[in-house]
Amino acid sequence: MKPKLVSKGAERYVVGKVERFDQKNEAFKRATWDPEMRELAKAYYAKYEGREMPKEKAGYTAKELALSMAGWHVALDFGSGLFIGGEGMEAWEAQPVGRTDTTRMPKGLKLEVEDSVEATRVIKSAARLFGASLVGVCGLDRRWLYSNSYHTLKRESKPVEIGNEYRYAIVMAHEMDYEAMKQAPNNIAEAAASTVYSRMAGVVAQLAQYIRGLGYKAIPMGNDTANSVPLAIDAGLGELSRMGLLITPGSYGPRVRLNKIFTDMPLMPDSPIEFGVWDFCKKCEKCARFCPSQAIVSGPPTEEIHNISNIKGLLRWPVDGEKCFTSFALNGTACGTCIRVCPFNKTPGLLHEWVRWGVKNTRWLDSLFVKADDLLGYGKRAQVDEFWHS
Amino acid sequence: MKPKLVSKGAERYVVGKVERFDQKNEAFKRATWDPEMRELAKAYYAKYEGREMPKEKAGYTAKELALSMAGWHVALDFGSGLFIGGEGMEAWEAQPVGRTDTTRMPKGLKLEVEDSVEATRVIKSAARLFGASLVGVCGLDRRWLYSNSYHTLKRESKPVEIGNEYRYAIVMAHEMDYEAMKQAPNNIAEAAASTVYSRMAGVVAQLAQYIRGLGYKAIPMGNDTANSVPLAIDAGLGELSRMGLLITPGSYGPRVRLNKIFTDMPLMPDSPIEFGVWDFCKKCEKCARFCPSQAIVSGPPTEEIHNISNIKGLLRWPVDGEKCFTSFALNGTACGTCIRVCPFNKTPGLLHEWVRWGVKNTRWLDSLFVKADDLLGYGKRAQVDEFWHS
Repeated sequence: MKPKLVSKGAERYVVGKVERFDQKNEAFKRATWDPEMRELAKAYYAKYEGREMPKEKAGYTAKELALSMAGWHVALDFGSGLFIGGEGMEAWEAQPVGRTDTTRMPKGLKLEVEDSVEATRVIKSAARLFGASLVGVCGLDRRWLYSNSYHTLKRESKPVEIGNEYRYAIVMAHEMDYEAMKQAPNNIAEAAASTVYSRMAGVVAQLAQYIRGLGYKAIPMGNDTANSVPLAIDAGLGELSRMGLLITPGSYGPRVRLNKIFTDMPLMPDSPIEFGVWDFCKKCEKCARFCPSQAIVSGPPTEEIHNISNIKGLLRWPVDGEKCFTSFALNGTACGTCIRVCPFNKTPGLLHEWVRWGVKNTRWLDSLFVKADDLLGYGKRAQVDEFWHS
Repeated sequence: MKPKLVSKGAERYVVGKVERFDQKNEAFKRATWDPEMRELAKAYYAKYEGREMPKEKAGYTAKELALSMAGWHVALDFGSGLFIGGEGMEAWEAQPVGRTDTTRMPKGLKLEVEDSVEATRVIKSAARLFGASLVGVCGLDRRWLYSNSYHTLKRESKPVEIGNEYRYAIVMAHEMDYEAMKQAPNNIAEAAASTVYSRMAGVVAQLAQYIRGLGYKAIPMGNDTANSVPLAIDAGLGELSRMGLLITPGSYGPRVRLNKIFTDMPLMPDSPIEFGVWDFCKKCEKCARFCPSQAIVSGPPTEEIHNISNIKGLLRWPVDGEKCFTSFALNGTACGTCIRVCPFNKTPGLLHEWVRWGVKNTRWLDSLFVKADDLLGYGKRAQVDEFWHS
């Protein structure tokens, strides 16, 4: 499963004209304005306003509900949350503080970059020290910028305008806890996601200050401002999967969250990679079978889209965001079942022989593989107590 | 090196009357008001006001200076920093946000604790999910509360008043990066510390919200409000060492930062542990030999103190905070040499046979052990490029 370097990143999925995506059309944003999704949205967003009562059901009792909410704390109260971006930890510029600003570096200092390879190595070392699990760099392909950002709380759109000097994107992946994700879908699995949203807000904030401290511009982001997955593919972090998420080549597989920084610092883009995900996903279909809302399609990749929540012009497996959101809303938690069951999601540290075999032998791969993966206990949902007693 | 459970925590070092420590007397706080330390302090604190220029020397150039400063960003700009506590991420109560507060839990909800062992397990699982490397619980021994807190920037003291309902302390240890600490002392090693201060502010903030979300009170802290080391010893996280820091039994050894939460949630205290540190430190003396400022004493433990920066009434190796700070100020970075050279600081994941031998055979331990530890390359300062190219 050693990745091979390839020339095309997200471009390899492009078969038609790609228009920049309006963030307002993303399913979780639509839920706040689209009349058809309004009722479900009310139920879903009540949780984030402290109006969800704990249930008797394990995984949804007070201790799990509070866990998922506490995980959100830093991302929502000190970062931009999942909103429009540019706020708090993800501010687009250094902020004044006392006699200095948040870079705490002498004014006017600029590190002249003579060697972009060396500069890239420095940025990546810094990103890993700050806590990124994986980091890559790509030239910024502006097709993946949102056309407009949309603020869920303020219900405001604004055009995404990124100056031409922002030529590079630094993309980071942040591992979610394996044991907690084995709980999906319930509030423990949501906590795996929410706590990583909080952690990665801190990481991206520090990396942006670092770049600014060296005299360059940096726009730190979460899910806002641009599609993360194609940028991550361009930056060599992994491949697109049937479930629409990035799959990385390490033991994390799809068990990561992504964020990114745009910068004018001259960096050396990474090569995109391939390690068999496309062929594997064609055969496996495990995520599609287990998806509680049938939001993930089975069958071959297609150019067709489900609704305005999909980008046109791509050959891939489009995810039905309406159905995915419906499942979140009815269940009252984030889901993540697709991540849990994916054969690429394995125990930390193990690049499992089983998956290696599957990737090498995709031509033999059929539903037997999926059944065997289950029989071996992979992707099996854990008992709630297994998390609390681990 | 399997720790054995013992009955006495920090109490084992107490030989006289212990008076609560005034934070104003801690060396880094003294530097801001003690006339004798004023000149050094000016040089030292200029860095945090963006007035330190990069040097030509490797480890102190722009890329390393900016790294240490960026690492501080979250701790200083969103947390309480190293100041008086109670601010930002370490607020003592949940803050209002929209229609709810930062717990995002229904008002008035309280998880009745029937089994404090189970409640403690839940809190520890949450702490680890949020990112703590180690977590323990102790009954709150009020001798370790500061008498007064001191705000370095505002130059204000205020008495530390913690209601009697706060019966427990949850103490967390957070690993610092091994490779970065191998650089000590320079700005990369400072970045290992600063980035962990930022990360652990997020962790303690989330854990405090979690406890509040379950209906209990929580005071989250960094270095403020109480001495962390004796609380960590009481909570079973490790032992006191010659260098005055906690040594944990895993491969981190002393390579951790500590923070803590006081709570009224009924928890089950951990047993303190012993695994041979006291006898080992008696013989090893490596930290004392390598300390650039001779702030760490050689010889047997003593009740004597160096100055007002030490607590009276303890039999241990008192660290000379004035000398330690002087070294920080003259060098222009945090130090950490003692942590780098300590034989208990080993590669992540390895509980090294060598140290295991040393702990078991302290009666044979002499300077030969220290020399051999060096010859094997342990604790050796790394070249600056080794960090950037790792």
